[in-house]
Amino acid sequence: MKLLLIHGPNLNLLGTREPEKYGLEKFEEINKNLYAYCFKINVELEIFQSNTEGEIVTKIQQALGNFDGIVINPAAYTHTSIAIRDAISAVNIPTIEVHLSNIYSREDFRHHSFIAPVCIGQISGFKSNGYKLAIDAMINYLKNSNENIT
Amino acid sequence: MKLLLIHGPNLNLLGTREPEKYGLEKFEEINKNLYAYCFKINVELEIFQSNTEGEIVTKIQQALGNFDGIVINPAAYTHTSIAIRDAISAVNIPTIEVHLSNIYSREDFRHHSFIAPVCIGQISGFKSNGYKLAIDAMINYLKNSNENIT
Amino acid sequence: MKLLLIHGPNLNLLGTREPEKYGLEKFEEINKNLYAYCFKINVELEIFQSNTEGEIVTKIQQALGNFDGIVINPAAYTHTSIAIRDAISAVNIPTIEVHLSNIYSREDFRHHSFIAPVCIGQISGFKSNGYKLAIDAMINYLKNSNENIT
Amino acid sequence: MKLLLIHGPNLNLLGTREPEKYGLEKFEEINKNLYAYCFKINVELEIFQSNTEGEIVTKIQQALGNFDGIVINPAAYTHTSIAIRDAISAVNIPTIEVHLSNIYSREDFRHHSFIAPVCIGQISGFKSNGYKLAIDAMINYLKNSNENIT
Amino acid sequence: MKLLLIHGPNLNLLGTREPEKYGLEKFEEINKNLYAYCFKINVELEIFQSNTEGEIVTKIQQALGNFDGIVINPAAYTHTSIAIRDAISAVNIPTIEVHLSNIYSREDFRHHSFIAPVCIGQISGFKSNGYKLAIDAMINYLKNSNENIT
Amino acid sequence: MKLLLIHGPNLNLLGTREPEKYGLEKFEEINKNLYAYCFKINVELEIFQSNTEGEIVTKIQQALGNFDGIVINPAAYTHTSIAIRDAISAVNIPTIEVHLSNIYSREDFRHHSFIAPVCIGQISGFKSNGYKLAIDAMINYLKNSNENIT
Amino acid sequence: MKLLLIHGPNLNLLGTREPEKYGLEKFEEINKNLYAYCFKINVELEIFQSNTEGEIVTKIQQALGNFDGIVINPAAYTHTSIAIRDAISAVNIPTIEVHLSNIYSREDFRHHSFIAPVCIGQISGFKSNGYKLAIDAMINYLKNSNENIT
Amino acid sequence: MKLLLIHGPNLNLLGTREPEKYGLEKFEEINKNLYAYCFKINVELEIFQSNTEGEIVTKIQQALGNFDGIVINPAAYTHTSIAIRDAISAVNIPTIEVHLSNIYSREDFRHHSFIAPVCIGQISGFKSNGYKLAIDAMINYLKNSNENIT
Amino acid sequence: MKLLLIHGPNLNLLGTREPEKYGLEKFEEINKNLYAYCFKINVELEIFQSNTEGEIVTKIQQALGNFDGIVINPAAYTHTSIAIRDAISAVNIPTIEVHLSNIYSREDFRHHSFIAPVCIGQISGFKSNGYKLAIDAMINYLKNSNENIT
Amino acid sequence: MKLLLIHGPNLNLLGTREPEKYGLEKFEEINKNLYAYCFKINVELEIFQSNTEGEIVTKIQQALGNFDGIVINPAAYTHTSIAIRDAISAVNIPTIEVHLSNIYSREDFRHHSFIAPVCIGQISGFKSNGYKLAIDAMINYLKNSNENIT
Amino acid sequence: MKLLLIHGPNLNLLGTREPEKYGLEKFEEINKNLYAYCFKINVELEIFQSNTEGEIVTKIQQALGNFDGIVINPAAYTHTSIAIRDAISAVNIPTIEVHLSNIYSREDFRHHSFIAPVCIGQISGFKSNGYKLAIDAMINYLKNSNENIT
Amino acid sequence: MKLLLIHGPNLNLLGTREPEKYGLEKFEEINKNLYAYCFKINVELEIFQSNTEGEIVTKIQQALGNFDGIVINPAAYTHTSIAIRDAISAVNIPTIEVHLSNIYSREDFRHHSFIAPVCIGQISGFKSNGYKLAIDAMINYLKNSNENIT
Repeated sequence: MKLLLIHGPNLNLLGTREPEKYGLEKFEEINKNLYAYCFKINVELEIFQSNTEGEIVTKIQQALGNFDGIVINPAAYTHTSIAIRDAISAVNIPTIEVHLSNIYSREDFRHHSFIAPVCIGQISGFKSNGYKLAIDAMINYLKNSNENIT
Repeated sequence: MKLLLIHGPNLNLLGTREPEKYGLEKFEEINKNLYAYCFKINVELEIFQSNTEGEIVTKIQQALGNFDGIVINPAAYTHTSIAIRDAISAVNIPTIEVHLSNIYSREDFRHHSFIAPVCIGQISGFKSNGYKLAIDAMINYLKNSNENIT
Repeated sequence: MKLLLIHGPNLNLLGTREPEKYGLEKFEEINKNLYAYCFKINVELEIFQSNTEGEIVTKIQQALGNFDGIVINPAAYTHTSIAIRDAISAVNIPTIEVHLSNIYSREDFRHHSFIAPVCIGQISGFKSNGYKLAIDAMINYLKNSNENIT
Repeated sequence: MKLLLIHGPNLNLLGTREPEKYGLEKFEEINKNLYAYCFKINVELEIFQSNTEGEIVTKIQQALGNFDGIVINPAAYTHTSIAIRDAISAVNIPTIEVHLSNIYSREDFRHHSFIAPVCIGQISGFKSNGYKLAIDAMINYLKNSNENIT
Repeated sequence: MKLLLIHGPNLNLLGTREPEKYGLEKFEEINKNLYAYCFKINVELEIFQSNTEGEIVTKIQQALGNFDGIVINPAAYTHTSIAIRDAISAVNIPTIEVHLSNIYSREDFRHHSFIAPVCIGQISGFKSNGYKLAIDAMINYLKNSNENIT
Repeated sequence: MKLLLIHGPNLNLLGTREPEKYGLEKFEEINKNLYAYCFKINVELEIFQSNTEGEIVTKIQQALGNFDGIVINPAAYTHTSIAIRDAISAVNIPTIEVHLSNIYSREDFRHHSFIAPVCIGQISGFKSNGYKLAIDAMINYLKNSNENIT
Repeated sequence: MKLLLIHGPNLNLLGTREPEKYGLEKFEEINKNLYAYCFKINVELEIFQSNTEGEIVTKIQQALGNFDGIVINPAAYTHTSIAIRDAISAVNIPTIEVHLSNIYSREDFRHHSFIAPVCIGQISGFKSNGYKLAIDAMINYLKNSNENIT
Repeated sequence: MKLLLIHGPNLNLLGTREPEKYGLEKFEEINKNLYAYCFKINVELEIFQSNTEGEIVTKIQQALGNFDGIVINPAAYTHTSIAIRDAISAVNIPTIEVHLSNIYSREDFRHHSFIAPVCIGQISGFKSNGYKLAIDAMINYLKNSNENIT
Repeated sequence: MKLLLIHGPNLNLLGTREPEKYGLEKFEEINKNLYAYCFKINVELEIFQSNTEGEIVTKIQQALGNFDGIVINPAAYTHTSIAIRDAISAVNIPTIEVHLSNIYSREDFRHHSFIAPVCIGQISGFKSNGYKLAIDAMINYLKNSNENIT
Repeated sequence: MKLLLIHGPNLNLLGTREPEKYGLEKFEEINKNLYAYCFKINVELEIFQSNTEGEIVTKIQQALGNFDGIVINPAAYTHTSIAIRDAISAVNIPTIEVHLSNIYSREDFRHHSFIAPVCIGQISGFKSNGYKLAIDAMINYLKNSNENIT
Repeated sequence: MKLLLIHGPNLNLLGTREPEKYGLEKFEEINKNLYAYCFKINVELEIFQSNTEGEIVTKIQQALGNFDGIVINPAAYTHTSIAIRDAISAVNIPTIEVHLSNIYSREDFRHHSFIAPVCIGQISGFKSNGYKLAIDAMINYLKNSNENIT
Repeated sequence: MKLLLIHGPNLNLLGTREPEKYGLEKFEEINKNLYAYCFKINVELEIFQSNTEGEIVTKIQQALGNFDGIVINPAAYTHTSIAIRDAISAVNIPTIEVHLSNIYSREDFRHHSFIAPVCIGQISGFKSNGYKLAIDAMINYLKNSNENIT
């Protein structure tokens, strides 16, 4: 099983800024912990971060044939990017949307996601633990899909 | 650690109806599995279901002093109940909102939650596995809160 | 053929109050006349009234396997209850929505129905005669469905 | 008792097109059946169809003094014609609005009727049986009005 | 000087219906009085009424080269007809919009006019006297335009 | 017969500014012409101008018992003043709203009038001639009202 | 004189939670003080609390013939319950709406009340003193009504 | 204790106009009664009325250091004046908003108040008795504030 | 291959009016050129123009069985006619919508088309050349459809 | 060069109230500093403050012929006054809008300005320094305009 | 004649994904066919694809002086990019917008284009044939412009 | 003191295109003048331009620890980029938003800024002089902040 984790814009600053919103853990630690967790449960993980909408689109396109599932925190692009939505629709790889903060207790414009409707589901509000939950959810989802097929 | 799981209206029909939206597992099985899971990880679990908004409000009020966390799937009341929101605010017990289906790929009126802004977070789209994810998320949340206090 | 007639909140006051909106016939008379009518045309009828959204949800759930059709006047819950809508969707019994007054010549908030989209149809504005029309419509609908199946 | 039945635009195609929405019966059959029904119950019926808003307005104007009631399926003009609404208001003949399909489970722009607020009531979703229901409703309405007067 | 007066749908019923809204004068009387008035002030007047949007469009097109000004009471089409608006724009004859009732003290949907923005001005609320005011206004307008040109 | 003409804010600048919108005639000339016109037709006229909403309210209050009709061009306050609307409602003197420019071919925020719904009618777009039309309309209105009473 | 005081959902928690919004007094104290106050001014008072919309509807229905006035704090149901509004309309007993907090300085969804338009008036923002003010207002209202009748 | 009562535009007409909305008592009587009431309970009262927004702003500014509380009926300015709101915020004197009529059963544009969010609370619908209730509410509020401070 | 070209209201004035919006070519020339073009490419073409919504509906109905494709410029009816939309849906003949001007750089109300969603596609902004493009597009579409069938 | 600085309602309280929004400097100091600054750079400055919309309108009208530029902080009237906007349009003197606080990080109703569209530009958020910036901007603007003319 | 064809995000996946929306032809084939077509009609064509908004902006900027016309399918950026709109406005090269699918029969958010208002026209719904139509339209447009100039 | 000036998309074309909106000065000249100005007042300035949202985000992130203030003209991204807003929030460096044109006298979609609420202030409408004003404003702001700290 091979998963791609995509971090959207500004997430590379995690841990250095606004911890009351996003938690205290640094971006590198979060990633290191997720690599370790995936290694333990025998899942291959690749992590990608970009501040550029187009690069995230391209990365999703390249996932085709290379990954079984995508976990994505589109950050600010959640609310503005139809291009990322279309990329997910196009590659048709099971995708889970994650938000570190609870976007529903923040500004109104953060309540709407262009991405969520083309995902399996959304996990919002659990700080960096949200990524782990998403990986667990993805594994469970992929196992069930396979069983249904067999 | 003691958790309360609240199922909102119509969830008692799970498994018998509209499996493409909510999954094939029956309501009783889901609950049985969750009891088993909590027993294994040493968490006390109580499960409550009601079709009546006011009974859910009362149940949340009674949780005060009796539970460390609430996992709630408010179902239809997600979108219409300010009373349940106010109950959660009032008792101030950490609460996680769960939806079996991905509410963001359904009708527009299901995209807005009165409950989410007063919860820690929201998990949406993972069928009955969403409850397990929420329990994991709650345990993680409560552990971190305690550590921060100590 | 077995039909369930559900009266929503405040309809138990029919005939005693605001006759210019709802007609002069008392609630008990209306029901008596409908029982008589159904007896005559050889249809089994059960009538239920509740002021509580959750009790109406529960009654609809219990209709499953017991009734061939539901006639419902959801009254105020027409405009606010997604829970009743979901119950009708879930049990998937043919349902007809009735309003005694013409809801389209009243306040704006009465023009929208959460229930109508999951019903066969809607009858609005004919005072208590609307129930009789709905029973006729239901019988006609069920007969045609059966013929189509055979 | 003399009734006028008005069919709006495109209803002359009934039965040849989109039967899943409007039923299988042909326009001529529907009319024939309604003539037969009215003959049986001793009601004089005239049926009129037009694709042109202005012709429907004129027909309603001409009903003044010639008909006791109007049953109208304004079809597409339901949602766009204030002229037909004004004609009904002006002649002040009791009018019932009928829709073959359930307009509340279709596109949003079909949920609003300019006509309904000036009618006695609305019947929506019962295919061609809706016309028969409307005739029954009209007869009942006119009888009660007369009794009230006497 | 040659003026065309266009009456929109249902105005042919004036005086027979809803006098509290539109005044007591009959349609024929109003027209007779306007002919007399124009004769007296040496203005040629043609009066046209139609219930059909398309016929009004055609009449406006035919005014080109034949009339110096148009007075139009578009009635219900005020609020729904872009075709009449486009016809007025296309022929580019000075046009004044008249309403017998004060449309701003009636239903919300009567507050918006598609026609007014392409007219010289609008006169609303003065019963049949509004036509006389509009004729006066048109004569004044045309005189000033001519003077400006000379 | 005694009429009060109220000019709202900035109308004192008429003729010196933006003639393409409001015409070339100066404020003083317009008033002089209206005094002359009223003198000729034996109507007493008082003219008042103020840039202050509250002064216009007070002037309307003082009209009570002193004037038979009010002609008002509320200018910018048309769109923002509920106080002027309430004053007109309170004194209950027949009032006509005038606009020099066609407010329906200008910015959106000029399309809505708080004043029009409490007036007899509105005249918009005829430059300074609009005042003369309003005086004519008022005289006609007052004559008819008197005749109806007698 | 006999008054019914209805407390809506979550008000039973008063004094134990969120005192900055609702004040420090406990629910029981507030009620005790109100009983004492009514006893002193010779008014019979009954107090009712429920978390369930339908029970509040039923209580209002039962007030018919038993109470001269109703004071209601519908809490969360203020903003969502048409059923309670309809009950008040139906029994037609003078009703006053009370809110402990100033609902106009809170979330947008708390600014709209379905209940207020069918009440005599609304009192908002005075903590538990609002109930006393409402009782005073009701007594004053009922006295004046009686005097008017006599 | 020293209170300032501010009456907004058109309230000086009270009792002479539209008694069905505002009550029968004349403005001078209302004020006389309030002076008498305050004298009796040993509260100093000043009453101010203006039709001009800016004068009300200035009066509120001058209250600073001179009054313990303000009772204001901003009338029409309730719905349009941010300047009055800002004045209340700036002087930071406890303020209560009063409306004689129930603004929630009137036109939509009267449902929104710019003033209420910066007040302690709002009292609406009790005719002139509303002022007395507001004075009582203010006294109660000021006493509690003082006790809390001591 | 047989195509029907429908021109909506006011298009018969093409070339005589507002050339900056619609181009300089006269209506007759445009049609002559299109006949010539179709003759050359061996396509049978019929051209129809009407100012009346209902006549366009009827023409579309009559196309059934007589034409392989429809090119329609609904002009003003684009934005207001559900009847034309329903006619196109009903006959189910491939249809292309054409606009001479770029409707997206004009007034807001011209940005919405009731017709486009039931067409193959839309061509907007290319003056009379748009018709030729639509004919080419239709031929290409019909050829591909036939190939797919074979 | 001669400039007029207009302060809108409540700005006379600057420095005594809400310093976190508007800064600590007192109104008189700000003005004194601006006089000094203008004296130094050889610009004639007049400063005007009023709480009344109409007085500000009148002041702007009087600026005609007397001032080369206007700097205005319309405060609350920014969001509600079309009269001030019209005055600026009418006198056609270059005008710059200033706000001490950043209006875009405050309440939604402060985000819209009726004034800005008729100004050269807007400066928002720099406390009292905003006035100095506006004077600099005006001088630069007027110099460039003059150079362009020469 | 030299044309630039710009493909927006995800269009590089054409033919491999969602053929029901975008057609079966592969991206490379489409481009090859367009090169061939342009070669045949003696038009120089350059094709550019990017997933990044900023790269498309830069490409449009570089077109200045190098291309006579631009054909652009902005894909997802159609609905979100003001930057691309501004680039087209800035370079002022005739531009045509193309969409493969009929965007008006898809999600609401795809109905609005930021790009269309600054283009000559828009072609939507004809799969890859839309590019050929756009090239034809552009050639026709450029020829006519040149003729007009000469 | 070290400042970063960021130019958003299409600003590199300044001076060559649409001078009526953005002024006649070329991009290079503007920058040269700003470098000279900053040199003179002893401020270190770096200037950055990009058409790509993600590159602007990255540049802002890199400013952390390297610059005391940011002046940004986000151009088209003002209205669409939450990513740039989040970057400014995250680095928490004082930022001023500049627009060359008066965005409030342009299209509606340019009236809303995602960036302004996280800036100190906004300067709009002064052509290239706006940058100089922003630099002055920033210096003033930074000096005052330092003084407050000391």
